[in-house]
Amino acid sequence: MRPTLHAVVAAALLAAPAAAQVPDDARVRQALAYAARTEAQTIDEQVALCEIEAPPFKEARRAADFRRRMEALGLRNVRIDSVGNVIGERPGEPGQPVIVISGHLDTVFPEGTDVRVRREGTLLRGPGIGDDCRGLAVLLAVARALDDARIRTRGTVLFVGTVGEEGAGNLRGVRHLFEKELRGRVTHFISVDDTGYELTKDAVGSYRYRVAYKGPGGHSYGAFGMPNPVHALGRAIARIADLQVPTEPKVTFSVGVVEGGTSVNAIAAEASMLVDMRSVAPAALDSLDRRFHSAVRQAVDDENARWPESTVRLTVEVERTGTRPAGTQPDDAAIVRAARAAGQRLGIDPHLTPSSTDANIPISLGIPSLTIGAGGKGEGAHSLAESWDSQGSEKGTQWVLLLVLGLAGVR
Amino acid sequence: MRPTLHAVVAAALLAAPAAAQVPDDARVRQALAYAARTEAQTIDEQVALCEIEAPPFKEARRAADFRRRMEALGLRNVRIDSVGNVIGERPGEPGQPVIVISGHLDTVFPEGTDVRVRREGTLLRGPGIGDDCRGLAVLLAVARALDDARIRTRGTVLFVGTVGEEGAGNLRGVRHLFEKELRGRVTHFISVDDTGYELTKDAVGSYRYRVAYKGPGGHSYGAFGMPNPVHALGRAIARIADLQVPTEPKVTFSVGVVEGGTSVNAIAAEASMLVDMRSVAPAALDSLDRRFHSAVRQAVDDENARWPESTVRLTVEVERTGTRPAGTQPDDAAIVRAARAAGQRLGIDPHLTPSSTDANIPISLGIPSLTIGAGGKGEGAHSLAESWDSQGSEKGTQWVLLLVLGLAGVR
Repeated sequence: MRPTLHAVVAAALLAAPAAAQVPDDARVRQALAYAARTEAQTIDEQVALCEIEAPPFKEARRAADFRRRMEALGLRNVRIDSVGNVIGERPGEPGQPVIVISGHLDTVFPEGTDVRVRREGTLLRGPGIGDDCRGLAVLLAVARALDDARIRTRGTVLFVGTVGEEGAGNLRGVRHLFEKELRGRVTHFISVDDTGYELTKDAVGSYRYRVAYKGPGGHSYGAFGMPNPVHALGRAIARIADLQVPTEPKVTFSVGVVEGGTSVNAIAAEASMLVDMRSVAPAALDSLDRRFHSAVRQAVDDENARWPESTVRLTVEVERTGTRPAGTQPDDAAIVRAARAAGQRLGIDPHLTPSSTDANIPISLGIPSLTIGAGGKGEGAHSLAESWDSQGSEKGTQWVLLLVLGLAGVR
Repeated sequence: MRPTLHAVVAAALLAAPAAAQVPDDARVRQALAYAARTEAQTIDEQVALCEIEAPPFKEARRAADFRRRMEALGLRNVRIDSVGNVIGERPGEPGQPVIVISGHLDTVFPEGTDVRVRREGTLLRGPGIGDDCRGLAVLLAVARALDDARIRTRGTVLFVGTVGEEGAGNLRGVRHLFEKELRGRVTHFISVDDTGYELTKDAVGSYRYRVAYKGPGGHSYGAFGMPNPVHALGRAIARIADLQVPTEPKVTFSVGVVEGGTSVNAIAAEASMLVDMRSVAPAALDSLDRRFHSAVRQAVDDENARWPESTVRLTVEVERTGTRPAGTQPDDAAIVRAARAAGQRLGIDPHLTPSSTDANIPISLGIPSLTIGAGGKGEGAHSLAESWDSQGSEKGTQWVLLLVLGLAGVR
């Protein structure tokens, strides 16, 4: 079910400036200059945050540090919500837009990972240094620059560090924001995620499953003639491998992991697979999903039918392990124009890249949302060899600053 | 290639008594009575051998102990050959049959397994207690009984503890006996393996493979449109799952283990399976083997053809990880009649069970061979819960003793 926009949000959206040009006034110039001048401090915060581990489902220590930094900046109503998101507010006027600018606290790296950051000139090496310590640091830099230039925005800006953006986290932080914590309040959502100058307006949705075929198993020779869970799994994969999908909108599927059996000379008791399906188009994704389920069932029927004399019947268990809703926005949506206008002022011509990020949730709810790169140049995200080159990275900070001002408006 | 019998062996076979009745003379009765009277000592040796670990490829400590026991019994030319088999001889007359009576030293249990044996009345619990510490102990008991009764045999009896009978050992001990150590010498082969009163005259042959599909892999969304190794694996398994095989002779196939991929959101770089195929009939097994190879190749072609636009081409690697040659012998073969005659005298009516044992090698070479149960009642072989009930087990010792005398002849 896709809830319709809350009435309050709808009213605010109507009142909001549609991709307003940010005034080229002295305060804005001062904020931009401040962001550039203090980029070294921003990078120091990026490193400090990154050297606090934040494994999946264990973001609490980094969250506590991020909260202290928000409080030090004088943000209002700084808090950690019931799922672990850190939230701080910079209030605007009533009835005006409410903009969330967020980065994600979590990494893909397990507990015990060496998260120390090494610097080699402008290059920084460390797991998570770009994805998404960079986003978190830029959030703080934006708040600091607004304060330094004494800018008051018409709209309210909510600074948020989310939990659970990566993989198994299944977007639980941002889901909670829109279902509970900020329900009905947010008019625009900006996820500052990862590096570079990419712009994501279309949310790649995904369904993820674990499928397990089960039977009693037995000796490969002595018990031969009974349905074999590995064989059922193979039949399912063969059917999935031949599924036809459109190229526009892009729809993808992959059996990423298979495992089953303990010995070459035994019929396994269980064989399983992890499956990932994605698209920016909800209808296309749902069509694929239906055909996937049909393939999974057909495979168990076929394997059982292969051995009509056997009393053994295999079963199949399908567990949905992840759902990220899909959604698209027009190329000329106001929020996209606002990001382009902000970029233009800095010589940034962002590339539009569909992706799967925290913005999936508000995009699927029809709330204008973007995911925006945080500048510099990252490599090897999700690997221990992750690195980030800070050369010219102040532009990333400035881009986010101008976008926030474009959406919130300057008083 | 199946070598023809060595000329010397062929001559000895012609000279050998065809399933000779064992004379019911005083010495034979004395040997049988001795075996029964000293069964408790046989079981003590079974326990002592079993409490020395003998993991796959690490049989040396148990072998050294077995060698000492053979030497203490006064067997001749006691030695450990270059692969680790323990061999001791009880010479007969020249030109007469040469009978190998063997047990296997190795177990399926890894290093560090608790191999202590617990006794509960007649029940003994311990990994390997039946399979095949029982066989090893019976070998020693037969030699001791022959000595006690001062029996001299016409044929030579070679007592052998083999290495590598189980799984990955791939019969390397018995292969070495027939390829090198005893090449051309052996006229009859008896493997005393496991418990009960089963008789194996037909060798279940097997082919084992590891098949791996490989490609560059990539992101499940970003790199979509390239051949997927897990999908190729599934296509192969689906083809294998539908292979048709005769039921007489029994032919079996199983994909026992599958693994591949590291993450749900990545196209794997590799996916692999372990495959097992078996039959007592060499031609039927070879026919299945050809169709298996064809399925494996077709799968990679199909997956590559599914993505004609991609520059990525998957490859497949097929590694043969095990070969056990198949073979059958007539139900009324002389060696089978000899075993039945020996059993009849003790009230044993053995059940004929095709199996995969050390005897596969000589059976495939056309050398009269059997695998024979060593008495008592075993349960849970290959599991840590293995147990063996010694009730009436002296009959097992006596059966092997009479069979050896039947084949070797009494002077």
